[in-house]
Amino acid sequence: MKNIAIIGSGLIGQGWATVFAQAGFHVAMYDTSAQATDAALKAMETRLFDMAAFNLIASSDAPEILSRIHGAQTLDDALDGAIYVQECGPEDVDFKREITTNLDAIAGSGVPIASSTSGIAASRYSEDIAGRHRCLVVHPINPPHLIPAVEIVPTPWTKNKIVSQVKDLMTQCQRETIVLNKEIDGFVVNRLQGALLQEAFNLIGSGIVSAEDLDKAVCDGLGLRWSFMGPMQTIHLNAPGGIVQYVERYGDMYRNFSLGDYDTLDWSQIVDDSLGIAFEQKTPVSDIPGAQAQRDRTLMALLRHKAETHAASDE
Amino acid sequence: MKNIAIIGSGLIGQGWATVFAQAGFHVAMYDTSAQATDAALKAMETRLFDMAAFNLIASSDAPEILSRIHGAQTLDDALDGAIYVQECGPEDVDFKREITTNLDAIAGSGVPIASSTSGIAASRYSEDIAGRHRCLVVHPINPPHLIPAVEIVPTPWTKNKIVSQVKDLMTQCQRETIVLNKEIDGFVVNRLQGALLQEAFNLIGSGIVSAEDLDKAVCDGLGLRWSFMGPMQTIHLNAPGGIVQYVERYGDMYRNFSLGDYDTLDWSQIVDDSLGIAFEQKTPVSDIPGAQAQRDRTLMALLRHKAETHAASDE
Repeated sequence: MKNIAIIGSGLIGQGWATVFAQAGFHVAMYDTSAQATDAALKAMETRLFDMAAFNLIASSDAPEILSRIHGAQTLDDALDGAIYVQECGPEDVDFKREITTNLDAIAGSGVPIASSTSGIAASRYSEDIAGRHRCLVVHPINPPHLIPAVEIVPTPWTKNKIVSQVKDLMTQCQRETIVLNKEIDGFVVNRLQGALLQEAFNLIGSGIVSAEDLDKAVCDGLGLRWSFMGPMQTIHLNAPGGIVQYVERYGDMYRNFSLGDYDTLDWSQIVDDSLGIAFEQKTPVSDIPGAQAQRDRTLMALLRHKAETHAASDE
Repeated sequence: MKNIAIIGSGLIGQGWATVFAQAGFHVAMYDTSAQATDAALKAMETRLFDMAAFNLIASSDAPEILSRIHGAQTLDDALDGAIYVQECGPEDVDFKREITTNLDAIAGSGVPIASSTSGIAASRYSEDIAGRHRCLVVHPINPPHLIPAVEIVPTPWTKNKIVSQVKDLMTQCQRETIVLNKEIDGFVVNRLQGALLQEAFNLIGSGIVSAEDLDKAVCDGLGLRWSFMGPMQTIHLNAPGGIVQYVERYGDMYRNFSLGDYDTLDWSQIVDDSLGIAFEQKTPVSDIPGAQAQRDRTLMALLRHKAETHAASDE
């Protein structure tokens, strides 16, 4: 049985532990607080039974999956026999440098050391680490136990062999891999989200549309196709001659209005002016945990639906 | 029984006719070619039985819905007793001006005259029309009989009463309305899509990620949540303190990388260089009609799933 080491017992660490244990790996979770690890084990138990309720795993498998995850008392214990290390610590470049240096001193030769960071390129902390060739970012999307997409972001010095090893491992864990050829701030997922959000804030801040209506443009419009087909394949099917014809027909139109008919607006100004109040009325901050749980239930139902639809179309 | 006039029997006209007939309206469809209208009636019959196969309508209702749609021989016939006119002609400003002038001369007083155009603001053709106060854009998302989102875009001279009349009608037809307060090129849906596509072309064209992997970032990542929750509500739930805290924490990060680490690239160059060939290999142009039909089946299954999930959470 192969072991995976998870460093950090927060939501991201918990999500990763569930993913690896589901794929049959033994998972050792280390946190500076042993109490935090105990709480994480309880939270993962609840989450596994939620997943079973949505038929994403068999109910009878939940105890066995959970039994593969255990807390480790020390970093050495966590990394004992580990074939892969997933660091899920705070978003701080000095912390990343220190923990990765420590992990590199302990981890067996050729073991990839991946960070879950959503914002810190691994080159910013790994340059002076002896085993920098095995350092990289493997960025999950929240919540990691549900969303299949995972970004693999090597540094300029990460060996290709490490990248392909990580890609294979992720595929084995039913993850959908997005491999970046170069490091870039925000990686791919958040850059795409950021571009759409910038346009959204511009439209709302200019008084063209309400935030409520803009949300409908996505969840009752664009987002329906995007939940099963990426934006590039979507446009390939939106002209009889495919993507080349689509760009011939519509490229200039998009580029002209993408350049902006208005200034790029300041997000803080817009939330302070009105949006903060509107969203607080819709979902008060105190209701956010409940709304997140509801979102995750809707996500689980959607994933179940996608799995069934996919199975049906394979028949 | 109230009547709706549809001008044009192409895919968009057919989609609208289905939407209105499903809501119980009698629909008169006019096209300069009577043959085209006959073909449209056949296509709508097929589509209604597809919808029945996915339980979006009852099979027993399909013939009745179809019986509410008929071809009209002349514009006068089409508009006889109509409470609403939806023009679905070619995307040409001179055509829009001519047909709208004719429709305005025939339509009863106070009847809204809406265009399905995705790109031409109604002010560009309606300024000199006597009844310009009732002209506006009502833009569906393709395919209109499946995607609920509809953009309502008034001109500076469209009366508020007309806008609210159209909004009520669309709500009655189970559409989700996005009301724009001002005209803007591309409206809201295509501006959001365009912003995401521009970033996608930049990332692909810079060699950072393949189109295939980028598509996964959306259909296995961002697009899952966006199929049931808009981007603004998504970020409201992505910080414990809601959208205000989210912008405090991440606003600068997004804005900094949204400004671009690379030049804005030319879409045509990218499709000509490589993308065209890659997508042609994946889905040859000759297979596009079949892939579109498969997309629509997946959409129907998703809409059915959303309706069931929604019904369950209301219980």
